[in-house]
Amino acid sequence: MRPSKRAFDEIRQVILEPDINKHAEGSCFARFGDTQVLCTASLEDKAPLWLRNSGRGWVTAEYGMLPRSTGVRIEREACHKGQSGRTHEIQRLIGRSLRASVDLSKIPDLSIRVDCDVIQADGGTRTAAITGGFVALYRAFEKLKKLSIIEENPIFSTVSAISCGFYQGEAILDLDYEEDSSAETDANFVITGSGGIVEIQGTAEKIPFNREDFNKLLDLAYKGTSELSKIQKTVLGI
Amino acid sequence: MRPSKRAFDEIRQVILEPDINKHAEGSCFARFGDTQVLCTASLEDKAPLWLRNSGRGWVTAEYGMLPRSTGVRIEREACHKGQSGRTHEIQRLIGRSLRASVDLSKIPDLSIRVDCDVIQADGGTRTAAITGGFVALYRAFEKLKKLSIIEENPIFSTVSAISCGFYQGEAILDLDYEEDSSAETDANFVITGSGGIVEIQGTAEKIPFNREDFNKLLDLAYKGTSELSKIQKTVLGI
Amino acid sequence: MRPSKRAFDEIRQVILEPDINKHAEGSCFARFGDTQVLCTASLEDKAPLWLRNSGRGWVTAEYGMLPRSTGVRIEREACHKGQSGRTHEIQRLIGRSLRASVDLSKIPDLSIRVDCDVIQADGGTRTAAITGGFVALYRAFEKLKKLSIIEENPIFSTVSAISCGFYQGEAILDLDYEEDSSAETDANFVITGSGGIVEIQGTAEKIPFNREDFNKLLDLAYKGTSELSKIQKTVLGI
Amino acid sequence: MRPSKRAFDEIRQVILEPDINKHAEGSCFARFGDTQVLCTASLEDKAPLWLRNSGRGWVTAEYGMLPRSTGVRIEREACHKGQSGRTHEIQRLIGRSLRASVDLSKIPDLSIRVDCDVIQADGGTRTAAITGGFVALYRAFEKLKKLSIIEENPIFSTVSAISCGFYQGEAILDLDYEEDSSAETDANFVITGSGGIVEIQGTAEKIPFNREDFNKLLDLAYKGTSELSKIQKTVLGI
Amino acid sequence: MRPSKRAFDEIRQVILEPDINKHAEGSCFARFGDTQVLCTASLEDKAPLWLRNSGRGWVTAEYGMLPRSTGVRIEREACHKGQSGRTHEIQRLIGRSLRASVDLSKIPDLSIRVDCDVIQADGGTRTAAITGGFVALYRAFEKLKKLSIIEENPIFSTVSAISCGFYQGEAILDLDYEEDSSAETDANFVITGSGGIVEIQGTAEKIPFNREDFNKLLDLAYKGTSELSKIQKTVLGI
Amino acid sequence: MRPSKRAFDEIRQVILEPDINKHAEGSCFARFGDTQVLCTASLEDKAPLWLRNSGRGWVTAEYGMLPRSTGVRIEREACHKGQSGRTHEIQRLIGRSLRASVDLSKIPDLSIRVDCDVIQADGGTRTAAITGGFVALYRAFEKLKKLSIIEENPIFSTVSAISCGFYQGEAILDLDYEEDSSAETDANFVITGSGGIVEIQGTAEKIPFNREDFNKLLDLAYKGTSELSKIQKTVLGI
Repeated sequence: MRPSKRAFDEIRQVILEPDINKHAEGSCFARFGDTQVLCTASLEDKAPLWLRNSGRGWVTAEYGMLPRSTGVRIEREACHKGQSGRTHEIQRLIGRSLRASVDLSKIPDLSIRVDCDVIQADGGTRTAAITGGFVALYRAFEKLKKLSIIEENPIFSTVSAISCGFYQGEAILDLDYEEDSSAETDANFVITGSGGIVEIQGTAEKIPFNREDFNKLLDLAYKGTSELSKIQKTVLGI
Repeated sequence: MRPSKRAFDEIRQVILEPDINKHAEGSCFARFGDTQVLCTASLEDKAPLWLRNSGRGWVTAEYGMLPRSTGVRIEREACHKGQSGRTHEIQRLIGRSLRASVDLSKIPDLSIRVDCDVIQADGGTRTAAITGGFVALYRAFEKLKKLSIIEENPIFSTVSAISCGFYQGEAILDLDYEEDSSAETDANFVITGSGGIVEIQGTAEKIPFNREDFNKLLDLAYKGTSELSKIQKTVLGI
Repeated sequence: MRPSKRAFDEIRQVILEPDINKHAEGSCFARFGDTQVLCTASLEDKAPLWLRNSGRGWVTAEYGMLPRSTGVRIEREACHKGQSGRTHEIQRLIGRSLRASVDLSKIPDLSIRVDCDVIQADGGTRTAAITGGFVALYRAFEKLKKLSIIEENPIFSTVSAISCGFYQGEAILDLDYEEDSSAETDANFVITGSGGIVEIQGTAEKIPFNREDFNKLLDLAYKGTSELSKIQKTVLGI
Repeated sequence: MRPSKRAFDEIRQVILEPDINKHAEGSCFARFGDTQVLCTASLEDKAPLWLRNSGRGWVTAEYGMLPRSTGVRIEREACHKGQSGRTHEIQRLIGRSLRASVDLSKIPDLSIRVDCDVIQADGGTRTAAITGGFVALYRAFEKLKKLSIIEENPIFSTVSAISCGFYQGEAILDLDYEEDSSAETDANFVITGSGGIVEIQGTAEKIPFNREDFNKLLDLAYKGTSELSKIQKTVLGI
Repeated sequence: MRPSKRAFDEIRQVILEPDINKHAEGSCFARFGDTQVLCTASLEDKAPLWLRNSGRGWVTAEYGMLPRSTGVRIEREACHKGQSGRTHEIQRLIGRSLRASVDLSKIPDLSIRVDCDVIQADGGTRTAAITGGFVALYRAFEKLKKLSIIEENPIFSTVSAISCGFYQGEAILDLDYEEDSSAETDANFVITGSGGIVEIQGTAEKIPFNREDFNKLLDLAYKGTSELSKIQKTVLGI
Repeated sequence: MRPSKRAFDEIRQVILEPDINKHAEGSCFARFGDTQVLCTASLEDKAPLWLRNSGRGWVTAEYGMLPRSTGVRIEREACHKGQSGRTHEIQRLIGRSLRASVDLSKIPDLSIRVDCDVIQADGGTRTAAITGGFVALYRAFEKLKKLSIIEENPIFSTVSAISCGFYQGEAILDLDYEEDSSAETDANFVITGSGGIVEIQGTAEKIPFNREDFNKLLDLAYKGTSELSKIQKTVLGI
């Protein structure tokens, strides 16, 4: 029995609430159980320098945690030493993941920045950020279409993410904080709606795992992201 | 007629929703119209150094804005140069204001940090932060009382804040972003539930004002904070 | 009796010595008793970006303290963490105050930076900085006029500043360090030579004050800035 | 045919030269073809704070690139903005990988820092760093054993790393810079001498990959790390 | 003829005014012609860590320039990037020079910091800082003796500094800004009152110099520092 | 007898190995005994701003130490606070020294950056950096000549550097770490192949030295740099 009482292959209650921000081109408030991430997608006034005249656009992401999103308050990154290594790692992952769903040649010279800010953390903030960030991004492109800034929505596939791990020897899906803290392996999978793998990050926290173990995690990941993709499509009406 | 259609002495719809964060000792989601500020109060594990053995405790505040809380996305302070002068100014003001409501000698060696993070901005974020931060702080003290960390709630008065200004020659209360942008004078008042003035900050944005003008603003401020104090008492059940 | 032996409404000996720097377009060494602030006004080679083609110019200020300007040596801001929140707050105040005396449309595309460096501190450094900074700024405009960079001096009014507070229940004017340390209320007023209020900043250090108290402080502030304005006019010969 | 002329499953010439630094407890100069990484393992005088009295020790890593290790000179990280997100990501990966080979309970209160500095880069610097860093770490533990600081060498398994990817539709092993630049998928695998998976990081650079593709990469990774493990054992004489 | 009209071996008018700061243990306002440096010596509350229990004390220095001490305003080091390489170089030089005059074993566990802030620069700010810093330091030790913190003044010799260089082929003494800008060689000498060389820093700005040239500069330096030493002794009454 | 067993006027074994880096325009691995410095010379894509249209080019240098180049590991400058004062001082010295050998008017609008990274330190890293940096710079200019970017090699003289000092009262040449640690005087000399003095930096570590002492050091420096110049010419085949 996992601490969360969920079945080994059961994801948390996932709620994706789009258009919750007055200012942003697109937005989504993503909840995976008690994990809450506010995602906004902003049209930048400038494309990155290295992209100019390439006929392509860009999508990037930033990630942050409110100081008391966690059980023990964390120091504000603005106060002390800038963004940590963990923050950099996560926001680079979010950016890569979202770009995998977009035909960048359809948004020449445009640049979208997706901000993912953790309001409350209970495990899986990066997977909630990718899954909710996708919804914010999709809505932003719809807005730009309406404003005639782009002709068609450049997204060709949904993309979502889920974590898997081994808890007391059993492969489980969508770990919350308590489960994650005692997991032996931690793996994050980013998978498109059509089943394409975008990113795999697996780390043996305590003891190395073998190929068979890894395949169990991958099976769970396919199941989880397939469910997330459905929720994304429902809230977006696509 | 002011842009918001409100009467000259009418505040926006104010909603103070306490206890919305799972982790924090106290919390409040404060909405002044479209301005939304998430306030959490955290017990710090250490009192500031200069306070040790003084028989007194401390309350301090931090302030931040999510990147897309504003109409034009602002850069994340963690990314570039740390907290701006404006951020410092505001969080010092919030801290001073909250301390004015607390008998610090009743929380010896304890330290509370109140984080005020702007989720959406539409003018008056600092006044919403003070008003909502007070509720978060009060709830935190209640929690500490329940946990027997303190014997009684050290708060002896409510404290709230409101902005006033001159718009097209007329004194108006609780300016939203549009009104604030074209105001001739910008003043913020922090006033306790019993009518004590804690802080006055008045700036002539365009032309200096005179004593009579200033008295009109002060009249409005008394009216506004008196209403805010009532809302605070209602949600806290005191 | 106040510690300084001065009458309750008596300012310190104020000496404003203009043109004491060989390089600066304008300069003034301002002494309020033992408080000494060196003010220089420099023509910047570029106007701020957001001002280009607006037909207006700009005046801004920076503030610093020499390490041993204070009783206990303070760390050099260049050494550790950049400018503190207090420094930011003060230099923004100085800038706003000085701009209130200048018709910015008469210095299109020009930008003046007024540096106020505290040589020795004994309370009231920001009020000495504003009062002396005004003299440096005026002298700089005279220099620019002589050099035919501008046609007329864009200053339309003097501006000066003074602090007031309650010491043992009595309202007093122009607090020195010792008086300030034990004051119950600390208020700074920036007022033009024609009596227009530019800025009011009042903080209850210990107990909130009421409207009547505030009016006493304002009365003193009018008296003090009126005297400062006269001294400014005398040294500038206007 | 791959640009390097190597067979699809052929690694570059790998030379691991131990004990090349006069000062370090352990060291290794690792060459994977033209990629050169200098690895030193240093005994730290203090264990990390959070580890005190836990009965365990720690192994951590840092990564850097000399400015002209690359085709186009890169700015020195000390000069501008500190370590980049990429640097953080890589050094965290190296640390996790090395710890997977060490029984930390056998080095209570000790801490080893492995510095991996890229002298010349030609693709695969992180895999060379892990593979060479392991040798430096092993040698450091031998030194500490000789000095009677520890009783036995706490390493229970070799650990090495290799990259794989798809180049023109074909899965290839150990990509050099030219191959990496045009690869469709980039994956790094960290695997122990006994075949345990420590870390998998796979990213679809251009188009998502499927499960079958991934298995091809994993096959190659097992082959490559098995060869690297043999080289490690040979140079260490174990 | 040199631009300053002085004889080739003539120093500028040097005025050393001690005790000009109300707060500092020792102070001196040093003027070398139009170069003005304010020096204060402060007793630090802690000796440096590496010195504890060594039976010795320490003297260190910091150097800064006011923004408009120069012809073209320089950015405040606190604002942008901390202290420059030049600042570091100069303050390390001042510290080494002053320590050469002090028997550090006579001030066990004490630490003095000498701040040298350039009020106005016209060439030779580092030599004025060393020469004036010595006076501030001496006065500080006298104060500590009076306060019975030390038993005797640990200074056993004066120390002063002067610059020399070649201007149009001729060796000249104590260069001002204009002379320095066009000098072919720039050398700074720190010499004790008894003629001991503490520091020599000579740089060929344009063409390398030979041994004979160098000896001419050294002759001038002995003459200059001998005169400075006399002025120091006069103002200190020793 | 000096600790190194060398004669008082004997330099260490010096090996200058050019062209050891695949990417750099010029490179040299310089060894002075156990001191090892890797020097690379890189053509920059931009000349410094202040140099544009001057008809001249520029040569600059950067210096760094690998964390375990020293007996006790030093913190990576990228991790903490950027480059130290010592680093700045050394890299400015290297840059000035190298420029003394180059006719900058022969490389209009070009800029070369010489990176000197200490792989292993045993005293005299700055002198090895200058001596090896010269070889890297020369080779870079040869490469640029071959690529027809410049017409002729702008170097008109070799330049090299050596340290001297007093050890137990005797003047000695080319101090290693152990000798340097107990030296009474530390002096570095930069001298061209034709005997021109480029830079002299002499510091009395313990007691001031006199003119005669200084002349002994200068004699040794001439002998040492004359030998280094020969080695440079041999490896460069000039």
